Amino acid sequence: MSAGASASTPSPDAPAAGRPRLTAVRFDGQALFALDQTVLPWEERELALRSAGEVAAAIKRLAIRGAPLIGVAAAYGVALELAREPTPEALERAADTLVRARPTAVNLAWAVERVRAAVRAAPADAPPDALAAAAAREARAIHAAEEAASDAMAVHGADLLAGTRRLLTHCNTGALAAPGRGTALGVVVELAARGELDHVLVTESRPLLQGARLTSYELHRLGIEHTLIVDSAAAGLLARGEAQAVIVGCDRVAANGDVANKVGTYPLALAARAADLPFVVAGPTSTIDPGCPGGAQIVIEERDGEEVRTAGGRPLALPQTRARNPAFDVTPAALVHALVTERGAAAPVNRDTVAALLRARA
Amino acid sequence: MSAGASASTPSPDAPAAGRPRLTAVRFDGQALFALDQTVLPWEERELALRSAGEVAAAIKRLAIRGAPLIGVAAAYGVALELAREPTPEALERAADTLVRARPTAVNLAWAVERVRAAVRAAPADAPPDALAAAAAREARAIHAAEEAASDAMAVHGADLLAGTRRLLTHCNTGALAAPGRGTALGVVVELAARGELDHVLVTESRPLLQGARLTSYELHRLGIEHTLIVDSAAAGLLARGEAQAVIVGCDRVAANGDVANKVGTYPLALAARAADLPFVVAGPTSTIDPGCPGGAQIVIEERDGEEVRTAGGRPLALPQTRARNPAFDVTPAALVHALVTERGAAAPVNRDTVAALLRARA
Repeated sequence: MSAGASASTPSPDAPAAGRPRLTAVRFDGQALFALDQTVLPWEERELALRSAGEVAAAIKRLAIRGAPLIGVAAAYGVALELAREPTPEALERAADTLVRARPTAVNLAWAVERVRAAVRAAPADAPPDALAAAAAREARAIHAAEEAASDAMAVHGADLLAGTRRLLTHCNTGALAAPGRGTALGVVVELAARGELDHVLVTESRPLLQGARLTSYELHRLGIEHTLIVDSAAAGLLARGEAQAVIVGCDRVAANGDVANKVGTYPLALAARAADLPFVVAGPTSTIDPGCPGGAQIVIEERDGEEVRTAGGRPLALPQTRARNPAFDVTPAALVHALVTERGAAAPVNRDTVAALLRARA
Repeated sequence: MSAGASASTPSPDAPAAGRPRLTAVRFDGQALFALDQTVLPWEERELALRSAGEVAAAIKRLAIRGAPLIGVAAAYGVALELAREPTPEALERAADTLVRARPTAVNLAWAVERVRAAVRAAPADAPPDALAAAAAREARAIHAAEEAASDAMAVHGADLLAGTRRLLTHCNTGALAAPGRGTALGVVVELAARGELDHVLVTESRPLLQGARLTSYELHRLGIEHTLIVDSAAAGLLARGEAQAVIVGCDRVAANGDVANKVGTYPLALAARAADLPFVVAGPTSTIDPGCPGGAQIVIEERDGEEVRTAGGRPLALPQTRARNPAFDVTPAALVHALVTERGAAAPVNRDTVAALLRARA
């Protein structure tokens, strides 16, 4: 990848308080600057991405990740490509490259489609740089809307979970996954800000360890008490009453409320149900895919088995061991206590309540 | 640890066929030789252990592991200590050291108690070396009985699962976990020997990766088709029909049939139930603890959080991240389709059927 990078290595022991709010992506008209999430928490390195191809590559290798964040990044990617070549062909090529970067999160296609529509709506006789400007304007609007959605979600989710002092969360759904405070982790942060939270159990989220690397890092910066566990320890700890609720994000919500999210979400939902605990999903309405009838129709990305055979670059198994690496799983709507969005929460989660959220978005 | 070690580094690409059967532990009267399971699959290093303390240390750091195997090793540990100092005090000290090495698997206490009883049964005027001889004789008897149990279990389990061509298994329960072919993996190997098995899904089994390191290694040696997955991918793959049954081992079975086993077993049982698939537990009757009424009474070993913060010695999270590391979880008997032992299978699993297995053992 040819993207430029500027690196800084913070002391991991620097006090959490007083550190600036995390900015996962920022756009200056010329480039998209993105924290390289593959090297966190050890290094805070910012990538400078200058084309749709560079943005797509960063999304593919999870330097930029989190359903809302990859939507925003992809929107900027279209704008960057049009700044390089302001033609309809470049628009189509950029959109195609970006949408194919990852198949599961619907935000990617949704955001790219929004930018494409905004560019196409430009007058036929508009000057070439008006196309890039229209794309950048729409991308910034998406970014601002997702940031506002994140704040609204945090409030709705904290209202819903008022009184829940011990939570369990999976993967990373904070400021590194969505503009603003995040999705599920935004709710956690809001509860902590209200003084209502005692403790968070954080699953490591193999294979790429977004929980161990990113969620622990965010909570450490914010001074929120947390404990890391291996993914498979969650069920037993929930059964023993170590958390009062589970909150996760989502990569795609089908029209019937089935949720595709980071692999390992579904067993958490089963464990929460068995322990009679609320299992809450948080995500902006941009994550809802009204064109997808149910979980069975969601394409589950299979990533390289090498991610399973290694951790932190170190081999964990013999190199010839075959590995499968589904990046997501599907949790049936019936296991979801509530779907928290910026438009409020759907509870129970079903075709009607999801449709109502979509109408509220429109 | 002061134990001697002899090392050899096999080519991991050496053909599986024709390699000698794995010998996890062997006793020559002077020392217990044990494959150091912490360095597998990269290195086949044999430890030479010459005292109860050395055996206990090897068990504690999981160089020797697997409920039946640590029982056998501990039995030899008592014999080694009595060879050094043939006194009742040495017997008690050795028993105490060994039983405290790990708290959850009941085989450890059971085997040590058997050896202690055999030594105490020696005549008061017996010569000093008769005590060590009695201990060694009993340890060898336990070893032989567990090896026979493993073969019987494999046959009972394979009979029970006849027609199941795709299995999912957790942790390592093969020749490295029990004398002979193992417990759950022994059943897998027997199905493969009968030509009835197509494929095994192997969970990596964080934090210490016994699935990735040891089960993959055993199946590779045996030429049995397998695919490695992260632990949290199992539920989604079971929901999608990628296996027809789940088979696991056990570290302690309570009198009511509740099963303590490697952390991550319970969510597999939940996922199997949700997918309407048999969830089968295999273990010798030495793993049943009639003195433990139910799962809530089983002591769950909490290991060092450093095992969670690292994989293969590499840090996965900031060093100041607090981690919890329960080594086991409890699966309620109601989720277990069958408990396979050397005395046959209990199905359903409940207080009565477990009691019947114990009577058959007596």
